[in-house]
Amino acid sequence: MGIRVAVAGASGYAGGELLRLLAGHPEFDLVAATAHTQAGTHVTAVHPQLAGLDLTLGATDAAGLSGADLVFLALPHGQSAALAAQLPETVKIVDLGADFRLRDAAPWEKYYGGSHAGTWTYGLPELPGHREQIKASDRVANTGCYAATITLALAPLIAAGVADPADVVVVASSGTSGAGRSAKVHLLGSEVMGDLSPYKVGAHQHVPEIKQASGATSLSMTPVLAPMPRGILATVTARPLTAQDPREVLQAAYADEPFVHVLPEGQWPHTAATSGSNSCHLQATVDVDSGRIVVVSALDNLGKGAAGQAVQCANIMFGLPETSGLSVFGVAP
Amino acid sequence: MGIRVAVAGASGYAGGELLRLLAGHPEFDLVAATAHTQAGTHVTAVHPQLAGLDLTLGATDAAGLSGADLVFLALPHGQSAALAAQLPETVKIVDLGADFRLRDAAPWEKYYGGSHAGTWTYGLPELPGHREQIKASDRVANTGCYAATITLALAPLIAAGVADPADVVVVASSGTSGAGRSAKVHLLGSEVMGDLSPYKVGAHQHVPEIKQASGATSLSMTPVLAPMPRGILATVTARPLTAQDPREVLQAAYADEPFVHVLPEGQWPHTAATSGSNSCHLQATVDVDSGRIVVVSALDNLGKGAAGQAVQCANIMFGLPETSGLSVFGVAP
Amino acid sequence: MGIRVAVAGASGYAGGELLRLLAGHPEFDLVAATAHTQAGTHVTAVHPQLAGLDLTLGATDAAGLSGADLVFLALPHGQSAALAAQLPETVKIVDLGADFRLRDAAPWEKYYGGSHAGTWTYGLPELPGHREQIKASDRVANTGCYAATITLALAPLIAAGVADPADVVVVASSGTSGAGRSAKVHLLGSEVMGDLSPYKVGAHQHVPEIKQASGATSLSMTPVLAPMPRGILATVTARPLTAQDPREVLQAAYADEPFVHVLPEGQWPHTAATSGSNSCHLQATVDVDSGRIVVVSALDNLGKGAAGQAVQCANIMFGLPETSGLSVFGVAP
Amino acid sequence: MGIRVAVAGASGYAGGELLRLLAGHPEFDLVAATAHTQAGTHVTAVHPQLAGLDLTLGATDAAGLSGADLVFLALPHGQSAALAAQLPETVKIVDLGADFRLRDAAPWEKYYGGSHAGTWTYGLPELPGHREQIKASDRVANTGCYAATITLALAPLIAAGVADPADVVVVASSGTSGAGRSAKVHLLGSEVMGDLSPYKVGAHQHVPEIKQASGATSLSMTPVLAPMPRGILATVTARPLTAQDPREVLQAAYADEPFVHVLPEGQWPHTAATSGSNSCHLQATVDVDSGRIVVVSALDNLGKGAAGQAVQCANIMFGLPETSGLSVFGVAP
Repeated sequence: MGIRVAVAGASGYAGGELLRLLAGHPEFDLVAATAHTQAGTHVTAVHPQLAGLDLTLGATDAAGLSGADLVFLALPHGQSAALAAQLPETVKIVDLGADFRLRDAAPWEKYYGGSHAGTWTYGLPELPGHREQIKASDRVANTGCYAATITLALAPLIAAGVADPADVVVVASSGTSGAGRSAKVHLLGSEVMGDLSPYKVGAHQHVPEIKQASGATSLSMTPVLAPMPRGILATVTARPLTAQDPREVLQAAYADEPFVHVLPEGQWPHTAATSGSNSCHLQATVDVDSGRIVVVSALDNLGKGAAGQAVQCANIMFGLPETSGLSVFGVAP
Repeated sequence: MGIRVAVAGASGYAGGELLRLLAGHPEFDLVAATAHTQAGTHVTAVHPQLAGLDLTLGATDAAGLSGADLVFLALPHGQSAALAAQLPETVKIVDLGADFRLRDAAPWEKYYGGSHAGTWTYGLPELPGHREQIKASDRVANTGCYAATITLALAPLIAAGVADPADVVVVASSGTSGAGRSAKVHLLGSEVMGDLSPYKVGAHQHVPEIKQASGATSLSMTPVLAPMPRGILATVTARPLTAQDPREVLQAAYADEPFVHVLPEGQWPHTAATSGSNSCHLQATVDVDSGRIVVVSALDNLGKGAAGQAVQCANIMFGLPETSGLSVFGVAP
Repeated sequence: MGIRVAVAGASGYAGGELLRLLAGHPEFDLVAATAHTQAGTHVTAVHPQLAGLDLTLGATDAAGLSGADLVFLALPHGQSAALAAQLPETVKIVDLGADFRLRDAAPWEKYYGGSHAGTWTYGLPELPGHREQIKASDRVANTGCYAATITLALAPLIAAGVADPADVVVVASSGTSGAGRSAKVHLLGSEVMGDLSPYKVGAHQHVPEIKQASGATSLSMTPVLAPMPRGILATVTARPLTAQDPREVLQAAYADEPFVHVLPEGQWPHTAATSGSNSCHLQATVDVDSGRIVVVSALDNLGKGAAGQAVQCANIMFGLPETSGLSVFGVAP
Repeated sequence: MGIRVAVAGASGYAGGELLRLLAGHPEFDLVAATAHTQAGTHVTAVHPQLAGLDLTLGATDAAGLSGADLVFLALPHGQSAALAAQLPETVKIVDLGADFRLRDAAPWEKYYGGSHAGTWTYGLPELPGHREQIKASDRVANTGCYAATITLALAPLIAAGVADPADVVVVASSGTSGAGRSAKVHLLGSEVMGDLSPYKVGAHQHVPEIKQASGATSLSMTPVLAPMPRGILATVTARPLTAQDPREVLQAAYADEPFVHVLPEGQWPHTAATSGSNSCHLQATVDVDSGRIVVVSALDNLGKGAAGQAVQCANIMFGLPETSGLSVFGVAP
């Protein structure tokens, strides 16, 4: 008998990816998956890619989840706190929403509105000290997908004093699954195919999380919706404070990490290579004209940016091998 | 120490997918991978999705492959026979090419040219009796991707006397990876995105294989290149010979199969749901206007259509659980 | 002062394409465009591709449309009849909906439900005699996009006694704009990219229109949603009744047509080549295995399949050169 | 009898778009189109979207081009100078290559290699004074596609003293047609679909042109290949020097321009809206966290970024209305 696991909010894209990973996990037993309007539906009607998995979605309430040893919350932002409060303390929780990520209440209220729910251990194992904190925690706030992509590129450079935290400019493009599975005209295939479309320019709600996690103190972040289902590519530039090679700093930081790969020189990350995996690919250089540090970071927004990262955190919380049930390798082409 | 496995022709798309599957296989140890012009290159320069796999491609010759217990041949059509002849009889072989699929020499010479190399056990485990033949064989000819898609839809209906083998019409659309990784203008992203493009209309070289495997005696098959990297969707229609429900025939044929799923009524197969998996999804109905049987079949041309199928055959040849190292579930969206 | 033109239902994809064509038309003056929920909105908020066009959408009612010499109706199926009844007889109308296409009431009631509104001149100028009927009509029912694609491929072959009208099998794949601009989960970019998805298999509502227009008496038509914004590719197969070359029949039928092109031998139609144009590309052969006639037809579902076709009909109705404001050439890549 | 026009290098993507525009131009008569390996081929075999245009490609030499009043050169970089030298002085030329764009020889030799051919009038009509220079010139160097996109966003802000020319950071993503029509593995549809891929990071050859045209003195420019056939989206950020609203500066600069549209507040440019047109869409804001100016610019790399821009310049050179044969409106979806 393995560890009993439940997923709340299983009808969305992150929820579906969690189910896929958990169905193949050697230690976690998927015992329940819940949804809101889709409660009562067989999982394959909602996620046809899971044909062969015999599971009916339940209602999202504490009763259906309390029997689990571990609950993943994949709910819309702002809905995790109420449900988490109803779950027994003995149930470990990984929240994929934004509710418990921020240490400060002020930016939460500014960007999300409403009152701040609190702060849980931040679920990015590759940050110094975080793996140990996650291991000791029963409640973990999984990273956002943009935050994971950008922080993995930037945090070691700021920590090493190589990149100026006060002068960071990022443009990050995301596949459409990052915008969720809600029926909106601007997300229709007819609108997004053949199209690059920036959004929330000049004021994105993930900026506070990225600053908190990476150490940046001033951040211009422009998000772009790209015509592909999965993947984030972030171009992170910063003014250098030293002449140190940024690539070497990243290599040193991630030398022992199974999921973060600083590519061989001359090879640049691209999103397709990370698709379906829990890996993040990185490369860095110094721009010859401006002298700025340029780091490119790629990952799968549903993998290392959401469900994969959450399973990695859960593996750590339960003392399992960190790579259990996760793939280092992408599905490409 | 597991079973020692090598891949010849590892630089193409099917080869890359084989490496991905073998790197995660619990029993097979990937000991060598070879290529032609890419020999000497690190595998991640050729397949960036495999970052984290430490392997350098060798040259494709018998010397580099003979030490393996099992060799997968993923070579261009017509090149398998010469290499296979040089490998020791003790090495089991699964050939992903077309060389050994046909029982008759005549259609080989008509569609492929050159002389026919011979006939190996046909590697489609779900056909009656084939699983046992594969288990008893040291040499297996893996199905072609179109043949797998169409045969799984059609063979049980012809075998049951429900569909007329002399009146079969198929239109099958394939993702671009089915056309291989060769640098040709008509395969450029600029040409294929936003485009549906038929090819080899009226005379496709896979027709003899499909007829042999499915039992069809007359087959109109039109292939179409579709703007997606992976996946085949085949619409298979045939004149009915009885009033039996074609869906029930398929359900009965595949009731115990782990990788072939007849979907719930009302739900139709689509390619994305099978991406990255070794599954084939099927659905059938009778057209209200014409009375023809219509079966739709979807699979991943690199999965159940090539590398996944090959691993499934190899699992059978070595007495392993048939699903070892393979995923039932697709990576979607 | 040119001909005063209005578009009812201008917020959808066909409506947007109509506005684009009319804004560049040398004789038609766009005087009004109406919408339902988007009434009161500036056109560029709804159709950003029309930046530079100064026009605010009005409400869809007879008052706003009656001042025009010509009204295009681009409304959801079933809504044209009520509006058309309120417009003065002196206003010429081209209806892009299905309401007035069918001669018989029975199939309308079977496939669409509700009572049949009536029958207008069928707007496919390339059918024998139709150009003259359109010229003499004040009310024209524009073809459906599937019907245009398939009928142009099939009608001359049936008329010539070359193809058996009782044995026609069609698979037709459409870009997503054919499904309209409604916010539905299965049309999201995340769902459709990388995916081929059949729908309404075995019973599509356009079958009666296609049979009526083409002369087919038995038709198996399977529609597939393809991962591209525009374009339809139809593979039309039929049993031959004579040994006549089907390509020659098509060439003879369309020799003088500006918008229907039978391609040079060996060159097959593909959708991207017709994108943004009013052209239909055709090619035909006889399948070597089955002996069936295979015709492939490609067009832009919003061009020759909807808005372009409607402008062509309107040009005829007003005695203008038939190509006015329309492009023979596609926008590719 | 109109103005006689020829296109050298007509087999590529920019060449094909030139042919499409010229075939519909009211004053230019397309009299010759030349190619290298495709000489002797009918144009529709090379550009199927031009079915209906009766033209055979000639060889690219001075003899075949000298009879024209106007020649467009759409050759690979470095090949224009030799051909231009052989054409009579009476022939007006628009060069779509990079050969004559730079004023200084040094950056040419650094980024392109070889010796600098010289400097022609720079073909960006919307820059102050340029329209008049183009009108007075017989030789015009058309802008590069990245330079057009970025310069239109940036030049007015630098000229007005609003943006710091010494602190400009740009990330620009291009559709694949920007990489040309050469058969390379990394441009295959299988590789680019579902993928974002940066290239030439830290040292792109277009940086000198962008600096010269925009007035930037320090420029970090990261180009990204995006999974779409057409379109460039540039995110241009700069440190502000004043508190002036950057949007108002752009509006004032382009108030009378037919092809440059500063969108209504709250509406951001996206590439699909410019597809097939000669328009550039712009929007600007000030980032709330960093205080940087952020301008987003979108255009069609084959339209305003290449062939459309070239026709616009030619219209000016011949005293024609600047919009002749060009579309303000995009083809979308």
